[in-house]
Parts: sequence; C-alpha cells; structure tokens
Amino acid sequence: MYKKLGSSGHRLSDEVTEHIKMLIRNEHLKPGDKIPNEIELGRLFGVSRPTIRQAVNSLVSQNIVEIVRGRGTFVSRAPGLARDPLGLEFILAPDLQISLAEARLAIEPGVARLAAENATEKGLNKIGECIEKMREVVHEHRIGMAIELDFHRSIAEASCNQIIMRVVPIILDSILNTYADSNPTIRDHGVALEEHTAVYKAIAGHDADKAFSLMQTHLKNSHERLVRRKSDKAS
Amino acid sequence: MYKKLGSSGHRLSDEVTEHIKMLIRNEHLKPGDKIPNEIELGRLFGVSRPTIRQAVNSLVSQNIVEIVRGRGTFVSRAPGLARDPLGLEFILAPDLQISLAEARLAIEPGVARLAAENATEKGLNKIGECIEKMREVVHEHRIGMAIELDFHRSIAEASCNQIIMRVVPIILDSILNTYADSNPTIRDHGVALEEHTAVYKAIAGHDADKAFSLMQTHLKNSHERLVRRKSDKAS
Repeated sequence: MYKKLGSSGHRLSDEVTEHIKMLIRNEHLKPGDKIPNEIELGRLFGVSRPTIRQAVNSLVSQNIVEIVRGRGTFVSRAPGLARDPLGLEFILAPDLQISLAEARLAIEPGVARLAAENATEKGLNKIGECIEKMREVVHEHRIGMAIELDFHRSIAEASCNQIIMRVVPIILDSILNTYADSNPTIRDHGVALEEHTAVYKAIAGHDADKAFSLMQTHLKNSHERLVRRKSDKAS
Repeated sequence: MYKKLGSSGHRLSDEVTEHIKMLIRNEHLKPGDKIPNEIELGRLFGVSRPTIRQAVNSLVSQNIVEIVRGRGTFVSRAPGLARDPLGLEFILAPDLQISLAEARLAIEPGVARLAAENATEKGLNKIGECIEKMREVVHEHRIGMAIELDFHRSIAEASCNQIIMRVVPIILDSILNTYADSNPTIRDHGVALEEHTAVYKAIAGHDADKAFSLMQTHLKNSHERLVRRKSDKAS
C-alpha cells in the first residue's frame, strides 16, 4: 500500500509524517478518531519506533493529531489548523492594531454579504444569540470584548464557506491580544450593539448589499471609537 | 533570564519550544539569522540535548526555523507561516473549488480597494510586471495559470497590509492544486488579461471604488468561464 520509505533525500521521519497524513485522508479519519499506535505504524511503514515518534511529534506540532496520555493518538478537532497559523506573533509591527482594523475592513463586509446570501436558520440563530448576550452585557453595564468578537465569528460561520470559516477566526483571535489594552467604554459598547443589530437584521433579511455596507460602516465607526479612546487615554 | 523549566504539567520540550520562540522575538532575530546551537541552547535552558532536539524539530514543523545541514539552524523566511496553515488539505470538500471562488469574491475586491489606497511605486511596478509577463504568455499563445495567480498575489502585496499579505497568498496557493484540472483556454486567458489590465489601471490611478468593482467583475467572470469550461469538458 505504501511505497518503501527513505529512498529520497528527505528526513525519514518527514516522509513518515506525510504518509500518516495520507493515511488520515485515505481512511477518511475524522476529528476525534484514533490513529494506529506506534507499533502498528512502525509495522505499516517498516520504520523504527523513534522515527515514528518523531513523525507523530511533528504531526502534534502541526495540530493534525493530539496525544491523550494513556489513551492514544487522535485526529485533532480542526486538523492542520495551527494555533497561530499566520505567524502573527512574529509580525514585529508596532502598527499591528491598525493593520488588523484595515484588514478587517477589507475582508469582513464581503463576509457579511456572503452570510446574507448563504445563512441557514441555524446560522442566523447563532448570530441572534450573540446579539442577545451582548444586550444582557450592555444592560448590566458590563463590558465584553470577547462577545463582540463572537458576533463577528458567528457571521463568518453563517457564510457556510469553509475557507472563510477558517480565515476569519484567525484574524479575530489575534485581536483579543492586541486590543487587550483598549477595552470599549460602556457607551461605545451600546453603540456597537445597535450597529451589530442592524447588521444582523440585514443578514437575516438576506439583503446582501445592505449587510455589506452596514458591516463596513460598523467597522469604520468601531475603529474611530478605538482611536478616540486611545487619544483620550494619552491626553 | 528564563524561568526554570519543567515545573508545569506540560511536556518539557514544549516549554523549550516556547522559550526558543521567545528568544527569537526578544533578540529581534530576523529571517535568515542563526539561532544558538544545541549545546548553547541546552546550557541556556538547562535541559538535555535530546529535549533541545525535540523542541527544535517542533519549531521546524511549525516553519519557525530551518535546519541547514552542516551550517546550523536559522530563522525561516516567513517564520510561523505553515505550509498549509489553514489545513485546507484536510477539508474533505468536493466543492472546494466553488468555496474558493466564493471566498475570493468575498475577500479580493476589498484587497484591490486597499491596494488602490496604499500602493507604493514599487508595489505598482510589481503588478505591472505581472501584466507584462501575462501579455507575453498570451501573445505566444501559451497558457499560464501561475502567472494569473501572481497578479493577484502582487495586489495583496501592494496593499502594504501585513495581515492581507499573509492571508491572501494562502488562499491563492491552494488554487493551483484544485484548479489543476481546469487550465484556461487561450481565448479565456486573453479576456482575463484585459480584465487584469483594467484592475491594474484603477489601482495605479488610486481609484479605490473602481478597483473594488473591477476586481469583483473579474472574479465573477473568471468563475463563470471556469464553470463553462468544466461543462464543455463534461459534455
């Protein structure tokens, strides 16, 4: 089934890594499915256990499999999706926050449009739940950055597009780190809630153009509010 | 400088991995810079060489460092940017091609807008070079999918946005694989060249709205041409 390994110039363990990936795909293993143990893999590929171990460690680093002590090795929840897939933690940009706002403005209105076109009942309910949670938070005069981002994440999910569903959360995840020092005020939070609600209604009404332009307006306003808070803080 | 390792519940080598990443960031090491060798790292973190080796292997898997035989270990060209960062090779979607077209239509018009706003002389020249190369290819009645994608890649670069510059190429890279069976005809290639040229002119003229809508039109047309070719082939 598998060609003899070690014949090319690559590290043997790298070849084993590729073959285990092939095995996961060929056998249609799903997240949570168990992969063969070290002994079985060693037999299958005709290589030693240290080589198998190195290959499996590499798969762990790439978030393709997870080792559960005493239970075995399993396909990861989102196989292949790395923790920081864009290497954003290595962007030495003092202006990362501005880059993020700019990138979101370029990408997310189009995502809102797609959500308006594709959203199912289930997808819409998820967005609606985020709105409800944010309403509670605002009414209790609390502040929640995470729930704001959940709203944007739920729109990406509602697009029903596998690429968008993987790309957008990566960008959003990096925001919690960079925006950590700039929590919204309660007043800004209330305004954001109104804007979110308008976007949600446009998506629920499957009005693609309106969803696009309302998301655009929201992200522009949101960035302006952020810049104002920063200058207020500085002065 | 570094806290004693191995005190928490994590694998020791995972902690060493995180500490080497910290070292790269703290010392502002750049792509191509050499990192300390195994012995030096072992001394620095007070751990054994096999542990260091495991940690370095993990960094290789994450594309943060590269080992050059006989020379040492160096910071990668785009550190942290994995080969298939979105795990697209694990999306078991028969409709990946449609998902890609849809995602590009959601994202790339906004990227063209940003390029029109931000492009420097250098960025514009790069886009122009892609147009020239494509013109040569078309005049010689050859077909080149790669050069079409280079055009789109150069627009992402011209946006001068670090997030966009990392996100868009990932999506484009996955196209060469999925579209492999659907090379454009020479006629379609010529039409695409005209559309590319129009987008380029809008970006060079810093006309953001026009760049947006021309890119939108181009991607819509391009997808229609692809669907037509596939149905021609099937019939």
